[in-house]
Amino acid sequence: MAELTDIDRQEELDSLIHEIRDTLSQEARTGSDAGGGFEPLSDLTKHDLAKLAQKIERLHAADVAKVLESLPQDERLVIWDLVHSDRDGEVLLEVSDSVRDTLIEVMDREEILNAASTLDTDELADLAPDLPEGMMQDVFTALPIDDREKLRFVMSYDEDTIGALMDFDLVTVRGDVTIEVALRYLRRMDSLPDHTDKLFVTDRDGLFEGVIHLKTLLLNDPETLVADVMEGDAVRFHPEDKARDGADAFERYDLVSAPVVDEVDRLVGRVTIDAVVDFIRESSDEARLSQVGLSEEEDIFAPVRKSVKNRAPWLAVNLVTAIVAAQVIGLFEGSIQELVALAVLMPIVAGMGGNVGNQTITMIVRELAFRKLGGGDIRLLYSKEIKVALINGVVWGGILGLVTFLMYQNAGVSAVMVAAVSLNFLSAAFFGVTIPILRTRMGRDPALGSAVMITAITDSGGFFIFLGLATLFLL
Amino acid sequence: MAELTDIDRQEELDSLIHEIRDTLSQEARTGSDAGGGFEPLSDLTKHDLAKLAQKIERLHAADVAKVLESLPQDERLVIWDLVHSDRDGEVLLEVSDSVRDTLIEVMDREEILNAASTLDTDELADLAPDLPEGMMQDVFTALPIDDREKLRFVMSYDEDTIGALMDFDLVTVRGDVTIEVALRYLRRMDSLPDHTDKLFVTDRDGLFEGVIHLKTLLLNDPETLVADVMEGDAVRFHPEDKARDGADAFERYDLVSAPVVDEVDRLVGRVTIDAVVDFIRESSDEARLSQVGLSEEEDIFAPVRKSVKNRAPWLAVNLVTAIVAAQVIGLFEGSIQELVALAVLMPIVAGMGGNVGNQTITMIVRELAFRKLGGGDIRLLYSKEIKVALINGVVWGGILGLVTFLMYQNAGVSAVMVAAVSLNFLSAAFFGVTIPILRTRMGRDPALGSAVMITAITDSGGFFIFLGLATLFLL
Repeated sequence: MAELTDIDRQEELDSLIHEIRDTLSQEARTGSDAGGGFEPLSDLTKHDLAKLAQKIERLHAADVAKVLESLPQDERLVIWDLVHSDRDGEVLLEVSDSVRDTLIEVMDREEILNAASTLDTDELADLAPDLPEGMMQDVFTALPIDDREKLRFVMSYDEDTIGALMDFDLVTVRGDVTIEVALRYLRRMDSLPDHTDKLFVTDRDGLFEGVIHLKTLLLNDPETLVADVMEGDAVRFHPEDKARDGADAFERYDLVSAPVVDEVDRLVGRVTIDAVVDFIRESSDEARLSQVGLSEEEDIFAPVRKSVKNRAPWLAVNLVTAIVAAQVIGLFEGSIQELVALAVLMPIVAGMGGNVGNQTITMIVRELAFRKLGGGDIRLLYSKEIKVALINGVVWGGILGLVTFLMYQNAGVSAVMVAAVSLNFLSAAFFGVTIPILRTRMGRDPALGSAVMITAITDSGGFFIFLGLATLFLL
Repeated sequence: MAELTDIDRQEELDSLIHEIRDTLSQEARTGSDAGGGFEPLSDLTKHDLAKLAQKIERLHAADVAKVLESLPQDERLVIWDLVHSDRDGEVLLEVSDSVRDTLIEVMDREEILNAASTLDTDELADLAPDLPEGMMQDVFTALPIDDREKLRFVMSYDEDTIGALMDFDLVTVRGDVTIEVALRYLRRMDSLPDHTDKLFVTDRDGLFEGVIHLKTLLLNDPETLVADVMEGDAVRFHPEDKARDGADAFERYDLVSAPVVDEVDRLVGRVTIDAVVDFIRESSDEARLSQVGLSEEEDIFAPVRKSVKNRAPWLAVNLVTAIVAAQVIGLFEGSIQELVALAVLMPIVAGMGGNVGNQTITMIVRELAFRKLGGGDIRLLYSKEIKVALINGVVWGGILGLVTFLMYQNAGVSAVMVAAVSLNFLSAAFFGVTIPILRTRMGRDPALGSAVMITAITDSGGFFIFLGLATLFLL
């Protein structure tokens, strides 16, 4: 399988996906053409499926997950059937949330319990929220007492804390032994957990004392005491620390693994870089989707019903803000009737303002992702964004005033345009700073929904400013 | 410095930043109050600065970078002066692009050369694009021949390739030696490069044969041959591979480091997880900013002039699309004059359509980030998104029809509203699928500017559909 180790394996996966879809669509054509399921398979296809099963057998679990994610639901379930039940657990861990739901839906109790039995406690905790109701209790009872406690521990922490990222694959060593003894102890183990770049040094009560890198073990004289070469000041986390801060620390200090200790410095687990990378990826994916009000639960193959539901809340919010904007315009129906140019020009004021507001809000949300802003920062931000908005208002408002004059040869309308654009830019800048900062103060995610709010303000506000000024000065 | 190893160190940094700003603002108040620079410092402040310098001395380079990023430009430069020149190089590597520019601007030739001399070739390559013109040649000539070649190699690859992420800190070992010999060889080294979780096995010609994990060295009998326990099928990269695919492979196979080989399988470098994490972070940061047309060059402390410039291109695009939308409305001035309700209702049609389009485009851009879509996928996508749009059109169009009727008690206007919303949703879904797919086909980033394009279409299209239908059927 040398060719599978190459990064070009992506193409290989693509061609396997292609092959699967060919095989299955042939069947679909000869068998039933309903979307809801497959008829008993022909012999030809059975043979083809056996061949596919072999190919899938050879894939890394993460690649199997990728294949499943790339298939529409019907075909996905046929292939899921081909995955050996021993691997169900690891594949479930790798697939995206939305695909995981569809796979678990078709598994029976026993299959789920079987899959769960192949996983570590920290992995079970990841899977738990997606299991059917009641099922988790069964999984729980099937565990040894010790693991139950660990599972309860991990599950008691929020998704966005270190506690949810940690695992229990600790290799600990005592500080008062020599490197020689530590090495002998390691050789008695069959293998070390993945991402073991260091051992954790504890005292006899399990209190954390420091870390010793594998390379330190390798490079130093075997007679040296572990305590003499360990790092006592290694970065350590607490289960209740924010996962985001943990990810920052991993990035800043280039960590591969780090210890997690409780309030009395007892070593309780570790966090590894792979969990951190997954967290970073998922957060950025989530942030992107949540900006347009979507959840991770939907993928492009999600059933229509699910998609409609997933997209509804945001559309509902938009419905309300749009109706408010319409009401604002409604206030000035008389003015529009007198001067229809206003109806033509008002969307320009609103649209440009929305743009300015979204730029400001994006800059600030990004900064807030790095750090807390102090009072001095905030004053500076307001003053800077308002200056930028003023300059932009004069520049772009000026251009729009000119365009307006070319369209209507009416200096009054032009002047109102310039003033309205500038004022709406100022309001966009002011609320663009205010909204994310207020949301952070209230302990909310500054990104989520910021775009709707600022757009609602610049739309309704833009219409009001423009139509209001026009009514005051032109009619 | 035990307290500095805790994740709560964030608060410590915040309080240091606070202290810095206090100290410097005192000075600013007693000295000059111009924004452009600081007057000669008073004795009191000199003493305070010495204390600050000590505190900064004790910080990790990444933390110094964070402090610098959190300060407005003037104060940032005062603190930059306090950083010991030996550390300039590593701090420059850690700060964001926009801050790096401001720091390099105030360094003279010698300081830059000095900072460069403390860095590895792969780090120099990261810094190179930000150095003043001509400076890079000087840095280049100051390097040993061997390093020059490496630097030229890394710099010949695009930012988004594996070549740009790789470093040359390779520890290689021959396959035909025993573990004992390998261990003895390691012990002769003072230290191993960061993120060395494995050694790279090469033959006498430097051809890559496999990898051997440190833990394999630790766990196996010292008499074993390296070749017998190495992994021959380890994931390997080529310098021209896409960095994104490399990041996927790191995530999928939980890698800490991976070899980079050339076309004849000669080992040329390695990629480590910290470079990958930086890449993932930066890409997601860039994607977020580019959605509103901003570049990474701007931070919240950027001068007003720079911000105005950075935000201009997007506003210019928006200016054009807004004027087009206005022209579309202008076509129907007569209809609006006759039925002013149209002006009130038209922004609703446009706004809701934009929302639907942005949801569709976000789903697809996200999917395109994972994989190429085949012809079957694309057909499925069109059919699914159009179904979702139809259902949403009927549901939300229906609600809007009702709202319209409550506002105007005019069944005709209501009917036009329902029809226009549904049609605009369909157009949004169609272009929401088409735009990112076409852009990918043209080899462009499907995300960049997608939102402007879809909004332009749903705005102008929405106005046209609504006003057109109204003109046809109501007037």
